[in-house]
Amino acid sequence: MRFVYLGPEATFTEQALHTLPEAERGTRTPMRSVPEALDAVRAGEADAALVPLENSIGGSVAITLDEIVDGTPLMITQEVVIPVEFVLTARTAVPLDQIQSLAAHPQASAQCRGWLRSHLPDATVVDMLSNSAAAIAAAQGEYDAAICAPIAAGRFGLTVLAEKIADHPDAVTRFVLVTRPASPPPPTGDDLTSLAVYIAHDRVGALLAVLMELAVRGVNLTRIESRPTGERLGRYVFFLDCTGHVADGRVGEALQGLRRICADVRFLGSYPRHRWVSESDRPVPAPAGLSDVDYADAADWLARIRGGDLP
Amino acid sequence: MRFVYLGPEATFTEQALHTLPEAERGTRTPMRSVPEALDAVRAGEADAALVPLENSIGGSVAITLDEIVDGTPLMITQEVVIPVEFVLTARTAVPLDQIQSLAAHPQASAQCRGWLRSHLPDATVVDMLSNSAAAIAAAQGEYDAAICAPIAAGRFGLTVLAEKIADHPDAVTRFVLVTRPASPPPPTGDDLTSLAVYIAHDRVGALLAVLMELAVRGVNLTRIESRPTGERLGRYVFFLDCTGHVADGRVGEALQGLRRICADVRFLGSYPRHRWVSESDRPVPAPAGLSDVDYADAADWLARIRGGDLP
Amino acid sequence: MRFVYLGPEATFTEQALHTLPEAERGTRTPMRSVPEALDAVRAGEADAALVPLENSIGGSVAITLDEIVDGTPLMITQEVVIPVEFVLTARTAVPLDQIQSLAAHPQASAQCRGWLRSHLPDATVVDMLSNSAAAIAAAQGEYDAAICAPIAAGRFGLTVLAEKIADHPDAVTRFVLVTRPASPPPPTGDDLTSLAVYIAHDRVGALLAVLMELAVRGVNLTRIESRPTGERLGRYVFFLDCTGHVADGRVGEALQGLRRICADVRFLGSYPRHRWVSESDRPVPAPAGLSDVDYADAADWLARIRGGDLP
Amino acid sequence: MRFVYLGPEATFTEQALHTLPEAERGTRTPMRSVPEALDAVRAGEADAALVPLENSIGGSVAITLDEIVDGTPLMITQEVVIPVEFVLTARTAVPLDQIQSLAAHPQASAQCRGWLRSHLPDATVVDMLSNSAAAIAAAQGEYDAAICAPIAAGRFGLTVLAEKIADHPDAVTRFVLVTRPASPPPPTGDDLTSLAVYIAHDRVGALLAVLMELAVRGVNLTRIESRPTGERLGRYVFFLDCTGHVADGRVGEALQGLRRICADVRFLGSYPRHRWVSESDRPVPAPAGLSDVDYADAADWLARIRGGDLP
Repeated sequence: MRFVYLGPEATFTEQALHTLPEAERGTRTPMRSVPEALDAVRAGEADAALVPLENSIGGSVAITLDEIVDGTPLMITQEVVIPVEFVLTARTAVPLDQIQSLAAHPQASAQCRGWLRSHLPDATVVDMLSNSAAAIAAAQGEYDAAICAPIAAGRFGLTVLAEKIADHPDAVTRFVLVTRPASPPPPTGDDLTSLAVYIAHDRVGALLAVLMELAVRGVNLTRIESRPTGERLGRYVFFLDCTGHVADGRVGEALQGLRRICADVRFLGSYPRHRWVSESDRPVPAPAGLSDVDYADAADWLARIRGGDLP
Repeated sequence: MRFVYLGPEATFTEQALHTLPEAERGTRTPMRSVPEALDAVRAGEADAALVPLENSIGGSVAITLDEIVDGTPLMITQEVVIPVEFVLTARTAVPLDQIQSLAAHPQASAQCRGWLRSHLPDATVVDMLSNSAAAIAAAQGEYDAAICAPIAAGRFGLTVLAEKIADHPDAVTRFVLVTRPASPPPPTGDDLTSLAVYIAHDRVGALLAVLMELAVRGVNLTRIESRPTGERLGRYVFFLDCTGHVADGRVGEALQGLRRICADVRFLGSYPRHRWVSESDRPVPAPAGLSDVDYADAADWLARIRGGDLP
Repeated sequence: MRFVYLGPEATFTEQALHTLPEAERGTRTPMRSVPEALDAVRAGEADAALVPLENSIGGSVAITLDEIVDGTPLMITQEVVIPVEFVLTARTAVPLDQIQSLAAHPQASAQCRGWLRSHLPDATVVDMLSNSAAAIAAAQGEYDAAICAPIAAGRFGLTVLAEKIADHPDAVTRFVLVTRPASPPPPTGDDLTSLAVYIAHDRVGALLAVLMELAVRGVNLTRIESRPTGERLGRYVFFLDCTGHVADGRVGEALQGLRRICADVRFLGSYPRHRWVSESDRPVPAPAGLSDVDYADAADWLARIRGGDLP
Repeated sequence: MRFVYLGPEATFTEQALHTLPEAERGTRTPMRSVPEALDAVRAGEADAALVPLENSIGGSVAITLDEIVDGTPLMITQEVVIPVEFVLTARTAVPLDQIQSLAAHPQASAQCRGWLRSHLPDATVVDMLSNSAAAIAAAQGEYDAAICAPIAAGRFGLTVLAEKIADHPDAVTRFVLVTRPASPPPPTGDDLTSLAVYIAHDRVGALLAVLMELAVRGVNLTRIESRPTGERLGRYVFFLDCTGHVADGRVGEALQGLRRICADVRFLGSYPRHRWVSESDRPVPAPAGLSDVDYADAADWLARIRGGDLP
């Protein structure tokens, strides 16, 4: 399998890609931008693209949301969530007080601001275009040190001076693996379904109606993002992540409901939920009365009634 | 076909039965009570029973509601709505001021109270067990006059002294024709569906949840009645009349939803709505997005998604 | 205080009245009908009327619902719930197998049908106009025995042959004490509020909107009854019982909401909930965030914001 | 009055600031970033800051959302919406086919991509840090031309070669004027209220509950954005824009409802809605039953009931 990912090499995206066994066995090509990664899949030049979707500090990656719905359909088949653990690296094991210049992507230095203030108050921070560009610059001796992803330290032969220097120790980034449309991976009992929903805004309470369609079928929302459609202020497409799989009775019925009341609905994929080690991270069972067994029972009951066989 | 109806003869129920062409061709037997009429159908001794369900002045006929859900299933296949137009009758065309005694069922005299006060202020009103018993008593000369249904005047050879003497000129009674379970009559585009819904009352907001299941599918409620289940105060069964036919996509889906969330649901029938001549009496079309075409489209769309063919 | 109640004497209504200490100290006058009892209060001829509202077997007492909203306003200040425990009585302690005739109100014999079938299969049941009329007839020797309320046995010097002969041993009747409008009794923390709500039926989903107004403020519905308004089929007034007191913040806000969206709302009273000995009979506390403290906090917060003092 | 705005000079933000008469009379100082602009107001060094909030193409300005709720409270007192009309400028009126190098902010060149492809297919586009930096570079002769805001052409003595070159001719940016907390500007009958709402995510259906609180009071949502709270994935703060003013009865009641059910609510301001020339741009009146007159009527009615004076 041919994988592409948001490049350059040796960033958190590549690190996330290495958590996928099938990617270890396939080819892995960095692309210059999210649109180029997705277009490579659309064009059949790659089989799957790994791109960032959201970060627990920075929020959604707008370009991913915009590009995934713009163009021929694509499908999310997997999510990968990895911790954003920045490391401070240098060519050799220099003491911190000898570091005068520091290369970093602006988001990296922003997320390590507190640590830098305490440990490198006098170093000059130089903005770089990516975490791996910062690592390369340090490896080439242009700057005394760099902030980068752990993967870059090994790749460019750098010494790790400090680990986990981000101010939010629990920060994570969520990536999605995107392919051309196909049958979704089978339900695991703990899945997510991603949708893009376009609302006819002249209907009052349209978003409320969308949430009702989900709530009545016991489908929980784990994420909602809005992006402008570009037509005018006040016109949005909503990106929803719901618990459950499109093959589940209740999710299927909810999707049909959205299809009927919304201006447009794009199905973006059903895939296993990434398991973290956290209290609230257990699988969410279907609410009482809303399991596939309940759906089958109700369908059977209705068929009997329609056939004149009152139970 | 063998028809039974709530007797005695020559009341509004018989009059309602005569509006059904198939009853004109069949046998028509009065029964002493609603339970006896329904049990005759249950036992196969009759094919259909016509019983009163509600009156626009007096409200629901509780015995009909209670008996229809108590025992083996029955099904409503038709509704008949007729005006409650009482007539004043006597053996001969006597002037009103010569009427000293008047036979009437208590509900009949109550519904004509205003007219009696104006036109027969001095007559003594004698309570009778039914409208036709009153007519018979007048025909036999026991009383000077009787209040009865128009049908009784002809039946017992009485002269009509005054027509439409009820205080509410628009009062109507709604009857239902009840059979053993069978395939419901085909949808006409303007149908009603009757249900009995049992709620698990330990769930807060249970009735709200029931109405939501209907509202989300655009199914309107035209009537809601509660009757005690007999277990304890606060336990009710709700009798609902909804617009639409069980064969309609949206009604079918709403019924399945109720089946899943309610303690019990009994389907009581889908049948053509009685047409009256009134402004608000036009057929109610399915709301936008909720027609059978929309349901078919959404089902097709879901099937394609599940099969991996993103539109 | 002058009390009236639905007569005749020695029925369950009088028995219920005796549970009120203030009625023991006042005068107690039976009235011939619910309308007469309520009109006596309206006219100032009595201070309070005790009338039946619903029975756990027979359901609502329609005449009480209709009369309480028809005419000048009245207010419910108390509810009384008593068990419907029929007794079999006779002039002397006759063996059951010597009873050939039995006097009973039709509802009484209906509710004891099972017991009668087992114990008095051959006795002739004679319909009487009230439970106490049956007792009187037995006391006067017209019939061998009578079914009546326990209070009637003592009143008319009858011997109790059997107790609790009703088929539903838990059957209860709920009575309400009705006065002219005044400040409601103070909140006890476990109160009910009764309302009559008229809906403009041309609004789709009007009943759903009513329930939403309650649900959003965490006000639970313990009872809902519909009665025709008399205008035409499909026009109803809904009688609602809600948990909470009109003096509670959340009930007050919900009532204002109903007032704004409904064609009409009649407040029928806030009064202590009758305590029974039952599992589900504990006081229902205000839901999280909906106590009077929460309402006061939110009002204070809003006042600060409106004044420009952002917290 | 001392105004600050997101700098540098001669960008769309400064252009937006010039639409405010009070800013024309006060001082206008560009700041290097949104945080610095807001902090200047927080510190009392400025009286108001104009910052971009959203763009009809690019969506929300995340840094503005994040910074406005992080720190001591601030308040939005005005919104300004201006068209994003890029111009192509040069030192002199050169023909387009002689332009070989073009300076532009990346977002500007992205939004003019189609025009550039048609009219300057061979020009090299050089990324600049801001629209005004591009204009300055062209003015100094470093590049043959620049894309910039109309204001920059006049400011730096450039010749406009082409107007309205953006691919979306209707693109607009919405700015907000932010001050320290004070009494909101008086209601105009066509206002918006901005809120930041924190949800306790362990409550199922929490967002639905938020929308219900608004819907029940007839408060419409014109915009909803989510931003991560930074705690973990799946924890969001929602930024809502609603129709109406905090001084309106229905908005006040809705806000109190949110205050009670949400983990936290921050009021961000009530201010006149910007009028555009568009069909859907008329003031939205309060829904039936939800005007201030209706609120006053309902409050008065409740007060009478609580006082024992049933209407």
